[in-house]
Amino acid sequence: MKRDARAALGVFDSGLGGLTVVRALREALPHEDIIYLGDTARVPYGTRAPETVVRYAMACANHLVARDVKALVIACNTVSAVAPERLRVELDLPVLGVIEPGARAAAAATKNFKVGVLATAGTIASGAYPRAVAAASTRIETVGQPAPLLVPLAEEGWVTGDVPRLAARRYLEPLAEAGVDVIVLGCTHYPLLFPIIEREAKDMIGEHVTIIDSAHAVALEVANFLEGRELLREASHGPGSIQLLVTDRPKSFDDTASRFLGSVTNGAEQVDL
Amino acid sequence: MKRDARAALGVFDSGLGGLTVVRALREALPHEDIIYLGDTARVPYGTRAPETVVRYAMACANHLVARDVKALVIACNTVSAVAPERLRVELDLPVLGVIEPGARAAAAATKNFKVGVLATAGTIASGAYPRAVAAASTRIETVGQPAPLLVPLAEEGWVTGDVPRLAARRYLEPLAEAGVDVIVLGCTHYPLLFPIIEREAKDMIGEHVTIIDSAHAVALEVANFLEGRELLREASHGPGSIQLLVTDRPKSFDDTASRFLGSVTNGAEQVDL
Repeated sequence: MKRDARAALGVFDSGLGGLTVVRALREALPHEDIIYLGDTARVPYGTRAPETVVRYAMACANHLVARDVKALVIACNTVSAVAPERLRVELDLPVLGVIEPGARAAAAATKNFKVGVLATAGTIASGAYPRAVAAASTRIETVGQPAPLLVPLAEEGWVTGDVPRLAARRYLEPLAEAGVDVIVLGCTHYPLLFPIIEREAKDMIGEHVTIIDSAHAVALEVANFLEGRELLREASHGPGSIQLLVTDRPKSFDDTASRFLGSVTNGAEQVDL
Repeated sequence: MKRDARAALGVFDSGLGGLTVVRALREALPHEDIIYLGDTARVPYGTRAPETVVRYAMACANHLVARDVKALVIACNTVSAVAPERLRVELDLPVLGVIEPGARAAAAATKNFKVGVLATAGTIASGAYPRAVAAASTRIETVGQPAPLLVPLAEEGWVTGDVPRLAARRYLEPLAEAGVDVIVLGCTHYPLLFPIIEREAKDMIGEHVTIIDSAHAVALEVANFLEGRELLREASHGPGSIQLLVTDRPKSFDDTASRFLGSVTNGAEQVDL
């Protein structure tokens, strides 16, 4: 099916953390319209069974497909670990997850073939990153480190100061000991902590260490993909819009959304899936 | 129905945090046999719909009832907020939740009628503590403070040092400003952080502040209850046993269980609900 370059990009996540991907997409693709769907009524997906995650992901995807998006971006590590293939098969639409781009960027950046991953306990346990890195190069060893404090730190907006600094150092320690030269931030919440993680990693591992923000990595792949398929919206149409959809309106929605998006939101529409 | 004093106490929780209640029960009631069921396959309950929580709680309770327990202790704030009445009606068994005892102890301890509660965002949002405190005394004002970092800190075993100290201070600040003289630790994970929270609270509010550990409060109510009904197991039977049941065996089960229980476990049996 021929897609329309003027159509919007569809992005979805279990909650609001995926807005860091919207932020990265906005920077890489300033002229694209973006529709973001956060399944805030059922967040977090990380504790659900894989078949439940696939079912929820399908509901999100179908909602966006009904809005005629030209491509789907899964801005959720849990969904990206279990559902992209299923969505690709069932939807006949370009579907990009958030794990593979980060893993490919890490594989391209490492010089000593040792990659570290910071992510939630669920993502680390899923083994999705080692698999995705191995798909890019079997020579690379991947060291996973669950970092459970980083999500609440990002959600609370505690992104500077001693608490996040000391937490980051504690999680980086095993990665430093393993001698990694690349660290993937494998959770959509972590870009908010990028500056502090990068600074502490350089202090502990050295100036040569590369931190891969997977939100940024997926935005670059989306840009390449759209360009390759001649699906970029023309600059002459002006700056793209951002439309926010949620399945439940959390109390502190505006604060949280603005924090992840990096700019003020103009509200969100509540939808049923 | 006449219960048997020799029967065990049944305790259940969505996961392993409720083992802090087992620890408090063991201290208060050294001769009781305790069967603990952790629904680790479906943890956390905090993000589920209330009717789902009731359904899960009923499954846990029925499993323990089938093991002939003489009373049920709900060692889970989420279940205690929505399910005790339903369980009492359907099971015809004494059922003690973890919220009411903590709230009553706080109401008894406050001298200026201002009580603070530290709990998860879900428990604070449920309004269960203000309701339970008001049931004890309508004169008391209850100030709730969500403390999302404390659960991962307890689970990671980060209970001393700067990270928990600074996190605790940040959560205590609004409670200190509100002028509370009693603080309830309204989450089964928090007893691990009792020493650091008490120290910082005394520093910020004054030596007169009282910290209520709800695990301890529920253990005292269980002891009173069993004594009043002549259901205490006789000391001549010797020290009570602790039997652990889980619905899924997390990788780091022994470490985590020992941390919450405060002593080494001798393993857990996996059961289906």
